[in-house]
Amino acid sequence: MPEYLPTAPYRGTRDFLPPEMSVRTQVFGHLYDVLERYGYQRYDGPVLESAEIYERKSGQEIADQQLYTLTDRGGRRLALRPEMTPSVARMIAGNAGSLQFPVRWYSHPNCHRYERPQRGRVREHWQINADIFGSDSANCEIEIFELVHDLMRGVGATDDMFVVRANDRNLLSSALTDLVGVTAEQLPQVFGLVDRWEKYDRETLATQAEEIGLPDKQFEKLGDVLGAGTALLDELPEQVKETSNLVKVLANEAAGLVRFDPMIVRGLAYYTSTVFEVFDTSPENNRALFGGGRYSDLAGMFTSQQIPGIGFGMGDVTLMDFLGTHGLTPQPRSEVDVVVIPVAEELAGAARQVATELRGAGMRTSTPLELRKLGKELGRADKAGAKVVVIVGQEDWAAGNVTVRSLATREQRVVALTEAAAAVAELLA
Amino acid sequence: MPEYLPTAPYRGTRDFLPPEMSVRTQVFGHLYDVLERYGYQRYDGPVLESAEIYERKSGQEIADQQLYTLTDRGGRRLALRPEMTPSVARMIAGNAGSLQFPVRWYSHPNCHRYERPQRGRVREHWQINADIFGSDSANCEIEIFELVHDLMRGVGATDDMFVVRANDRNLLSSALTDLVGVTAEQLPQVFGLVDRWEKYDRETLATQAEEIGLPDKQFEKLGDVLGAGTALLDELPEQVKETSNLVKVLANEAAGLVRFDPMIVRGLAYYTSTVFEVFDTSPENNRALFGGGRYSDLAGMFTSQQIPGIGFGMGDVTLMDFLGTHGLTPQPRSEVDVVVIPVAEELAGAARQVATELRGAGMRTSTPLELRKLGKELGRADKAGAKVVVIVGQEDWAAGNVTVRSLATREQRVVALTEAAAAVAELLA
Repeated sequence: MPEYLPTAPYRGTRDFLPPEMSVRTQVFGHLYDVLERYGYQRYDGPVLESAEIYERKSGQEIADQQLYTLTDRGGRRLALRPEMTPSVARMIAGNAGSLQFPVRWYSHPNCHRYERPQRGRVREHWQINADIFGSDSANCEIEIFELVHDLMRGVGATDDMFVVRANDRNLLSSALTDLVGVTAEQLPQVFGLVDRWEKYDRETLATQAEEIGLPDKQFEKLGDVLGAGTALLDELPEQVKETSNLVKVLANEAAGLVRFDPMIVRGLAYYTSTVFEVFDTSPENNRALFGGGRYSDLAGMFTSQQIPGIGFGMGDVTLMDFLGTHGLTPQPRSEVDVVVIPVAEELAGAARQVATELRGAGMRTSTPLELRKLGKELGRADKAGAKVVVIVGQEDWAAGNVTVRSLATREQRVVALTEAAAAVAELLA
Repeated sequence: MPEYLPTAPYRGTRDFLPPEMSVRTQVFGHLYDVLERYGYQRYDGPVLESAEIYERKSGQEIADQQLYTLTDRGGRRLALRPEMTPSVARMIAGNAGSLQFPVRWYSHPNCHRYERPQRGRVREHWQINADIFGSDSANCEIEIFELVHDLMRGVGATDDMFVVRANDRNLLSSALTDLVGVTAEQLPQVFGLVDRWEKYDRETLATQAEEIGLPDKQFEKLGDVLGAGTALLDELPEQVKETSNLVKVLANEAAGLVRFDPMIVRGLAYYTSTVFEVFDTSPENNRALFGGGRYSDLAGMFTSQQIPGIGFGMGDVTLMDFLGTHGLTPQPRSEVDVVVIPVAEELAGAARQVATELRGAGMRTSTPLELRKLGKELGRADKAGAKVVVIVGQEDWAAGNVTVRSLATREQRVVALTEAAAAVAELLA
């Protein structure tokens, strides 16, 4: 007796069967559509990249623990991309001479990270990346925030379902230094602490603060700063605020798009000023959906040319959870619009001829591959989501006719072959 | 001085910058559209699979020399999928209980093979896979051949640009055994020889035939059989032809879709009867574009349930070469339809407001992120492929107006903001 291999996909990866794939195609289609209406152009790159670009840039956590690496037969050390930013930085640097900056680009790659599978964490995920490269202007921030709102609306969300929480790392640095008294050496660790602020209880955070060298009083002041919201801005020095794009946004008609929140820092190392996260406001799913930020020097490991950028990556898992939580998941599309059923095997060719007509008119049309009783085929057509069937009978066909039948009303009529497409279109409308 | 990393992608893989990506999106979009009009439903699966499924099934060449493998931190041996069939077999086997067979599925995965880079060979390629699972009927062959023709027409090909050469491995076996006198033991090697028939000169083939144990006379007879075309059918025993789906196709109204060709065998091991290849008829590019065939037992390594299938995989490299050869490559889409240009920084918000209106009407619209002189922005808009610009000037805006200008005719007029979308749409039409 043969031993069968397991049919489950590799742990942390997913099969997308047609119904789920249809949902995804619709959701991503809406997102592509919004991105293109903003003038973002799609690009793509390889799954395999030199391992070195992640070891240099993505931070040690990813490189040490989460990277899928391999060595090819030529001895080259490769990695499955864990994120798109180093790839796009490479592409932008390699083509900087022929690009008209600023450019707006988007992509939809699959990325691999070796994670312990749990809710919201998979080993292969799909991520929409959207970025502006080559501009420092606060207009970029405003556009990105507008885009985020329109993307969310594009998948059916209303503005009460999510909130964009934004910060500027330079503002936070100033607050930590000037108001809390954090030293330059302590800053990176305190950023890490801020990043964990909402994930741990107060006591744990206090212990961690003490380990960094922040005694009780400083820890309390830190809590005040992080909870201050917009009021914090009044306490910060003018010269820090003057150079902050986020402060410009907040002074603008676009201020309503974001909520200033000193607690947002984002884990990844390359953000240098603006950072933001989009949060689900539902109490059931109260967490970050996705986020992004600005980097002053995107492609520094590939070129001496300093290219700033701002953008975000929107993962599929949290997005689909969000849609589910809010009842926004679209229905899978039906398999077909119409099934053309021959009543006998010798009419299979006739049925194909009718199907060709209907496809020519843009209708999704199938014909049965195996001959079954008409009643059975009607049931299968219904199950496939068809709204109309066209029945090809012996005598009808000899007279140049077919029978067009609505599966919903069971209403049917005999029409000339030349009229079939119009008759079906009428029932589908 | 820092050392910069190379900006070229890993050898044999490709970056797709927006212009090329736009071409690809259009071409694949036409293919998806044709597939969906036939009722094929899209699915997807992981890049990483257990290495074992390829070692068991894809043939030794792929497993030994072409597979990218790695071991994860849990000790699991994985491979980057080199093709989609084992993945889809796994998915079909795992979900056989809930599927309504026959099913029509398609996918568009990227697949990895460690190949020596050369024309038409890359290490990461994208492949459209289309299959019918769960039917033995010759109606499947007919549908697949019709689909192939419509896919080619979908990307702009006319019927004279390509030919579908089809064979049935059982007919070939019978011809080799009954007419050439090949023994059962020699058959696999002779299949290999047939597969190489068009790649080598006669002398080399004769030497290889002799090594297999076919002396001159048999080798000559082999040449006659392979060159006989449809005439070969007359020489084959009735009981072999009776069970051949391809013979049924050739006796049918669908006969014109394919040319019977005893020389087609296809390298991959799992095809069991019908095999076919689509050839470019152009003398410049005279080679197989893609191919496929039928397997009597698709998912045998995953389940005891015997599930037949027929399908094909269409790779992106040969397809794009074909389009190039025949002048069918579409133009990249423009970046945007419209650019809304504010004449001063304080009008940037006004420009965004106009852009929002235009996007709402479905137009791809951008606004400049950095302030430049109007003339410069007009040049950039033209370069981005915009046909229309909307200029937001101080006095116009104060009066609730904007200027709509055609970049082609330079014709322009002042319209009320509420009329702007209609005025732009008119110029775009």
